[in-house]
Formats: sequence, C-alpha cells, structure tokens
Amino acid sequence: MNVSLLNSRDAALLGRAQRVVPGGVWGHMATRAIGPGYPQFFARSEGCRVWDVDGNEYVDFMCAWGPNLLGYHHPVVDAAALEQMKAADIGNGPTEKMVELAELMVDTVDGADWALFQKNGTDATTVCVMIARAQAGKRKILVARGAYHGAVPWCTPSVVGVTAEDKAHLIHFDFNDAASLRAAADQAGDDLAGIMITAYRHDVQRDQEMTDPAFLAEARAICDRTGAALILDDVRASFRIHLRGSWFPHGVKPDLAAMSKSIANGWPISAVVGGNAFREAAAKIFTTGSFWYGGAAMAAAVATIGILKESNAISHTIAMGERLRAGLDEAARRNGFRLRQTGPAQMPMLLFDDDADLRIGNAFGLAALRHGAYFHPRHNMFLCAAHTPADVDRGIEAADNAMKDIAAAGYVQS
Amino acid sequence: MNVSLLNSRDAALLGRAQRVVPGGVWGHMATRAIGPGYPQFFARSEGCRVWDVDGNEYVDFMCAWGPNLLGYHHPVVDAAALEQMKAADIGNGPTEKMVELAELMVDTVDGADWALFQKNGTDATTVCVMIARAQAGKRKILVARGAYHGAVPWCTPSVVGVTAEDKAHLIHFDFNDAASLRAAADQAGDDLAGIMITAYRHDVQRDQEMTDPAFLAEARAICDRTGAALILDDVRASFRIHLRGSWFPHGVKPDLAAMSKSIANGWPISAVVGGNAFREAAAKIFTTGSFWYGGAAMAAAVATIGILKESNAISHTIAMGERLRAGLDEAARRNGFRLRQTGPAQMPMLLFDDDADLRIGNAFGLAALRHGAYFHPRHNMFLCAAHTPADVDRGIEAADNAMKDIAAAGYVQS
Repeated sequence: MNVSLLNSRDAALLGRAQRVVPGGVWGHMATRAIGPGYPQFFARSEGCRVWDVDGNEYVDFMCAWGPNLLGYHHPVVDAAALEQMKAADIGNGPTEKMVELAELMVDTVDGADWALFQKNGTDATTVCVMIARAQAGKRKILVARGAYHGAVPWCTPSVVGVTAEDKAHLIHFDFNDAASLRAAADQAGDDLAGIMITAYRHDVQRDQEMTDPAFLAEARAICDRTGAALILDDVRASFRIHLRGSWFPHGVKPDLAAMSKSIANGWPISAVVGGNAFREAAAKIFTTGSFWYGGAAMAAAVATIGILKESNAISHTIAMGERLRAGLDEAARRNGFRLRQTGPAQMPMLLFDDDADLRIGNAFGLAALRHGAYFHPRHNMFLCAAHTPADVDRGIEAADNAMKDIAAAGYVQS
Repeated sequence: MNVSLLNSRDAALLGRAQRVVPGGVWGHMATRAIGPGYPQFFARSEGCRVWDVDGNEYVDFMCAWGPNLLGYHHPVVDAAALEQMKAADIGNGPTEKMVELAELMVDTVDGADWALFQKNGTDATTVCVMIARAQAGKRKILVARGAYHGAVPWCTPSVVGVTAEDKAHLIHFDFNDAASLRAAADQAGDDLAGIMITAYRHDVQRDQEMTDPAFLAEARAICDRTGAALILDDVRASFRIHLRGSWFPHGVKPDLAAMSKSIANGWPISAVVGGNAFREAAAKIFTTGSFWYGGAAMAAAVATIGILKESNAISHTIAMGERLRAGLDEAARRNGFRLRQTGPAQMPMLLFDDDADLRIGNAFGLAALRHGAYFHPRHNMFLCAAHTPADVDRGIEAADNAMKDIAAAGYVQS
C-alpha cells in the first residue's frame, strides 16, 4: 500500500494550475472528470508503471489513455525516434521516414493503399470526413449515438461553443443496430458521403460491445451500393485488436481508417489510410499542420510497427488482459461484488452493477490507488506489452484489497 | 554552388511516395505547391542550415516554415525536452511542466491571464473560436479575406471536402480596412462572437502588410462595445514580432490569442492564451487530444521562452532580416531586377515586380538553390537566431548569383 498517498505536491500543483489554466486541467485527463482523489500530475513513467508527483508508484492500467502499447520509454522505439531527431525532425519538407512509414502502413493494414499523417486522432477522423465528402461530392456522415470521434466542433461531445451548423450533416444511428443504420442511410438519401464506426463500441461509462459482424456487413453493403465511404475510426484501438486493423478479424475492409494513439508508442502522430478508390479525393483536399511531417514521431511509428510485426506484443496484451479479467472476477466474488467486465480483454472496461452514479466504482478506484494500482472507474483501460504476469497479479491484489476496503467502509450493491 | 544538385535520391523518394501517399506529399510542404525543382525531402538540419536527401547544403531562410526560431537542434531546448522525456512525456495526466509553461506564458504574453495547450496551430485557432462562441452565446466570427487560419473545414482555404455549413458563420472583411470591418460587424449584428486577425497581413503570394493601428483600434472598439472576443491569430508570428505578443507594440490587447510554430523551437505544441473575462468560457468547452499534455514539448517551450527572455534572439533575427533585405535590394539593382520586400524583416516576403505567374520568382528560387540558399518564391520566409552575418551574406551572394543566372537565361521584367 502506498502509505505516502497524501498528494500534497499534487494539490499544490493543482492550486497553481487553477490560477493559470481554466479549470486547472482541460479535457479527458482532468481528474474532476474521473473519480475524486485521483492524482492529477505525474512525474515518471517506465514500462507499465507510473509515478505521481508525490512519489507514489502505480501499476498502470490506463497506459496514458492508449498511447503506451509496448511500455513507456521503450528503448528501441525511443532510440529510433531520437536518432531521426538528431538528423532532422521538422524541416522544409518531410524526411525519408515519411515514405518508409507510409510503405509500412500500406504493407501492414488491410485495405490500405496509401497513408497520410497528422498529429491528433481528431485530425485523422476529420481528414476522413473531408475525403469522404470530396470523393462523393455529398455531405451526410452517419455516426453512432454516443460514439466519440474527437473534440472539435463537428464531433465534440459537448454543445458548448458549438453551432448547430457544425453538426448539420451528421445523422445518428445506434451501434450494432442494422435497422437503425439503414434508417439513417435512408434519411441521408442521395447525400450520403460516409459512415464512421469505431473499432468496437467503447463509449464512456457504459458496457463495451464487440462489433456484430452482421451490422458491419450491412454498413459495408450500404457503402458498396451508394459509393459512400465506410470509415473505421480506429484511433483508440489502433493495432491493439489486430495488426492488420480492427476489422480484419471480421473480414470487412474499410474505405478509410483513422489511426493514432499507440501507433508510435506515445510519440505524437496520427494517420489516415485508405483504398485506391479514395486516393484522388485524398490528394485533392487541403489539410496540413506545422508539425505533421516531423520525422522523429514517424521513426517511432516505424519502429513500433516493426516490433509489433516481429513480436507477440499484441497477443501478450490479450493474455495479460484475460489474466486481469479473471483475477478481478475472482476478487469480486471473494468480496461480494458483482462486476461487468466488457470489451476486448486488452482494452478492458470495468463497471460495478447497481452503480449508475459510480459511487462504488469511484471508491474502488481510489482505494486501488492506495494499494498501488491505477484503474479507471468509467473509461476503458489498456494493457501494454510491458505488463508481466507479476504486474497483473499485483494489480489484482490491489483490486482485492481495494474491494475489502470499500466493503469494510460500507459500500454494498443492492 | 551545389554542383551535385541532381536530386536523384529526391526523385526516387518522391516516386516511392507517390505510390503510398496521395499526390506524394500533402499540404503546405508539397513542392508542387512551391516552385518546380525544389527538393522535397530533407535529411539533416543544424542551426540555419538544411541538407536535402541528395546531400546538398542550403543556408535556410524558410526555417521549417516558422518553427525554427533559435536554430535547428538548439542544445539547451533539446536537452530540456529530452530530460523531461526521460522522466515522463505522456502519461495519465500532465506533468509539472504544464503548470510551469502556463505560468510562463501568463508572465510573458500581454493580456494573458491563463493558457491552454494543443498540438497544431489549427487546434489553437479552433479553440479560440469555440471559446468566443461559448462566452458570448453567439455565432459569427469575422475573418479577413485571404487570411490563413488553419486547415480544417471551418477555415481551410480549399472548398474540397468542405460543406457550406462549415463556414456558415464566417463573415469576411478586408484587412486594414476599418470600414469593411465595421460593415462585417454590422452584418453579424447581435450574433457577433469574435473577430480573428493575424499578427499582420501575411497571406500567401501577395505583399505583406503591417497592421494599421487605427484598424486594430477599431476592432478593439467593436469588441469592447459588443462583448465579442478580439482574437489574435499569432500562430505564424508567435514571439517573432515581440515576446509579449505581436500586438504589444500597438498597445492593443487581444481577448484570446492562438500561438504555435516557434514557441517550442520546433517541438510540436500550440497554445491559446486569454484574459480573465474569457476564463469561464475556456473552462466550459470540451477540447482535448491524446498528445496535448506531452511534457517534452512543454519543457521545450519553457526553455525556448527562457532563452528569448534572456537573450537578444528576437532583435538579432530582426537585424539579420534587415541585412538580408538590404543585400537583396542591392543585388536586384545590380542585376536589373525590381523586387518587393514586405512585412517584418525577420519574416520577409520576396516578390518580383511584373511576375503574377511567379515565372521569375520560381526561376530565381531554383537558381538560388543551386547556389546554396533556400528561399521561397511565394510564401513569407523566416530568419532564426542561428543566422550569422556571414550566413546572411552567403544567402545574399547566392541570390546575386541566381539573379545573374536568370538574367543570362533571359528572364527580364517588362
């Protein structure tokens, strides 16, 4: 147990932050959007461990919300990035690494004939929407209710600072509901430009759902019939489900796919890959960024994909996720709690039954922190290749102790 | 003269790129959007020099299109970034560097009471628009005709892949034309959320224009009267005009400012700073990115700003820009050409008279490359602190030789 979890340095930093940053911290990493009591600031990371600014060490099951796939500070990835950086990172044009990475993406991802690179996942989903519209000369984009595709006006889950026109051409359907998808396509009529679907359903604070192959086949059929782009938003799952893309196991090829998060093991980059039918449209849109050609992040991506190809990293994260899931189930039974663990084992979601307000989940997460494990009470988590069985077991033990603590404190399910 | 400028490796790489990247290279760094014959791929950079993949060395007056302010691979900046990276770059929350950088921005930039950080310049301008709308509960944003504010649908200069609704709430005015600004504000009426203006007029392929203080005063007055946000798009000029912000010399405080490019000397980061009146709105919008909290780029920004505060870097770039401008004027006179050199000396634009189709400018740029200097024929350029008088003189000599070459080849102004 982290007996030193006083978080005094964290509190002091947050106090300073609140003076110079609106709300102290913005976006998905603001702890006020997680459970209360979570450390906000971090000082160190290594492998599958993170240390907060007060020196507390955690076995980390959040992995920087996705980017950490091979372990923080992977020596091969970082060496490749730093070697490229020493020569040239940004300049008046791209480096050779851009070509190498694009070739590797085409070689790796199912259905990819070309690639473009950006910085944010949101850049990638936005570029997909632009390409779909440029290709079709049409406007409507179908998206699932509750799905997260980024945080600019056209897709941000908030309405604050957003106009109705920003989302004027979005039509919603229900994930895994083919009839609702057909109805949305009918509503778009002749104006259907694309259908965007995440790798599987990984909406915040709800059970995850694997993609129904029949639903996906319906999406593919609609796009084949209408010429609209079937867009895979693979930003969060990038390479974690399958090296050839998250829909490869389903045998469904997207026309366009947005990737980011883990493709360079934490170095900032995103990518759009697509098929030849959308190549001309992809060349016609104008989209760019000051740092999009940075060679270091591209070298990191090349190294990351190389390791994924040559190692069992992905299957290892699956095995570790299954070990964690089994251990948490057992701990819950032992301590009288009912859990729902959903989604791919390597991107696990952990919710307590009868806990709509997350009272139990938040208390559990906070108690687990005190026992040295970082879980998330309402967002899917991530395993990485640096998690050993011993690390996972340490996480399970922390969870077991956390459940004991909250049971003793009177948290019970009805 | 670079006698080895055969560009065979560049051509081979571009051929490979064209197979796996739509159009070979996208966005502002695609050489097809510059002059023909420019090297597309770069292998090395150091100080104010770049080397293309064929080994040709250039004195660089483009500075990666802005990010290079202190010199490529500045040892102090890179050491600070790498030290932070060794501890923690991305994690489950920001590092202490976020607080340090926000405090430094507030301490440095005129009118800044708080800061938010992103990755792209476009992220920063988009966040400004969202905050302006959130604050006012209004929608219209006034922008200058021809101004570049980024490359997502609401602001990209292209219409391809963009819907009318993406730009539905933009109203255009003419830069430096107070009457046209008033007319645009009248058109917005009760729905005016903000006015976005670049540091000065730096549109592509036209003479640059310094900002008319009376025009800026009018913009400030309209915002004061209506509660709309006066937004400085300082992305391109960030810190190059003045460390306290590009409008500081005019005595005009923006409500919000977007910064990027050079603030971390090439490390990928952007920022929005704003005044207290807009703090609550800034805390209410939801905008985020997987890599926005990265500590390494923030450490680079802290180091860059520290150097700018303690050194004469900015005034040195101005002196070098003035030296370049004088030398180019002299070379032009000597060789019988009429040039227009406009804008701040440290962000120079170089256009030839009677050259609307850039026939002369492109030929000049290409010839200068052969003599070892990288100029841009239609976009503003950048000086950096690593340019010495000898480097600038070498650039002038390359330009002089280039003018001799194109004069001999029959390029004349009417």
